[in-house]
Amino acid sequence: MTNNHAFSDAEKQAVYRAIFQRRDVRRFRSEPIADEVLQRILQAAAHAPSVGYMQPWNFLIISDGQIRKKIHDAFLVANAEAKEMFEDERRDAYAALKLEGITESALNICITCDRSRFGKVILGRTHQSDMDLYSSVCAVQNLWLAARAEGVGVGWVSIIKPEDLQEILHLPENVVPIAYLCVGYTDSFAGEPELKTYGWLPEILLSELIFYDSWGNTKNER
Amino acid sequence: MTNNHAFSDAEKQAVYRAIFQRRDVRRFRSEPIADEVLQRILQAAAHAPSVGYMQPWNFLIISDGQIRKKIHDAFLVANAEAKEMFEDERRDAYAALKLEGITESALNICITCDRSRFGKVILGRTHQSDMDLYSSVCAVQNLWLAARAEGVGVGWVSIIKPEDLQEILHLPENVVPIAYLCVGYTDSFAGEPELKTYGWLPEILLSELIFYDSWGNTKNER
Repeated sequence: MTNNHAFSDAEKQAVYRAIFQRRDVRRFRSEPIADEVLQRILQAAAHAPSVGYMQPWNFLIISDGQIRKKIHDAFLVANAEAKEMFEDERRDAYAALKLEGITESALNICITCDRSRFGKVILGRTHQSDMDLYSSVCAVQNLWLAARAEGVGVGWVSIIKPEDLQEILHLPENVVPIAYLCVGYTDSFAGEPELKTYGWLPEILLSELIFYDSWGNTKNER
Repeated sequence: MTNNHAFSDAEKQAVYRAIFQRRDVRRFRSEPIADEVLQRILQAAAHAPSVGYMQPWNFLIISDGQIRKKIHDAFLVANAEAKEMFEDERRDAYAALKLEGITESALNICITCDRSRFGKVILGRTHQSDMDLYSSVCAVQNLWLAARAEGVGVGWVSIIKPEDLQEILHLPENVVPIAYLCVGYTDSFAGEPELKTYGWLPEILLSELIFYDSWGNTKNER
């Protein structure tokens, strides 16, 4: 049977290009992002799947220099703590990594999750209460891929205490930060993840990650 | 300055097409998915961003009928409980929804997160311990978009107790199920989310979801 819903080969290749060439970017040029580009990548985020059509996300566009400085200070504190968790040479290697572009990127975007949106009982969230968080994560990934297609770099900064984000951005109690993103044009979309290049951790082959019917079963009887 | 990294207009449109036409699919045709298509969508998943290059995901391909029946039974129990959480007409409306395609889809895929992969200290996870879960969610969204491009439907079934998935799929203690997906060809990629069509919850306009610099600030001073 023909599959009417499949994209053309050229379209498929474009989708895979976005997926394979998306990178966590930490080095940015300073020129601004046009409003129409920003709106398109936010629309992409807002078209993520959401549990029970809850749409739990908000998008905070942060450009103010003072707020960015506070965020950057919070990063520095967390990063100094993080460094101490590694041992010996690994500690030095960690310290040498550039892990954020908070102040030099065109803007920052914080994607949040409102855990109380539309009330307590949400279709699909009754037995897996974190599904709302996961919906907001899907929005992050949509934004990231759309940004890649637009030639815009995105870097996810997770080395910040959530309570610092909560305070600096004045998030209400029911709203949690999911991703703090640095967003901007860049000269460097590397060919592979930086941490792979540095040999920080080894790549795991896909074939080692697949099991059939039950955990640990590597025999494909399909 | 020209942006060398942007995709062509045709490529951008293909990426946005995948994002905007992706649907949560619950009605499937039975014909099998070719191995090369399955491999491509799993490769897409494995190219998700992962915190500290942790690659915490595994992919369980479930085709066995008996295991699927057990999963379906677990869904039925949870779904009956879920129904009781809604009131009056909403309960009847809930009961009328088709929310899964576990047994009729070509296959099921469970994407997991190994919370102990590569040890206790992971770069980027030191201050936000759920970043590993979020990495696996990004893998789900990559798979979903790649599948859309291939004309393959995906539906995320979250109305199952995680402990049931854990037991039926023999997941080790350190491995948690993130997404149980029904995957297969379909006649129905609807034009918009079903729950939007049904008026289950209202759509929130993007403009209402954007704040500037601080929660609640709707004034764009960029």
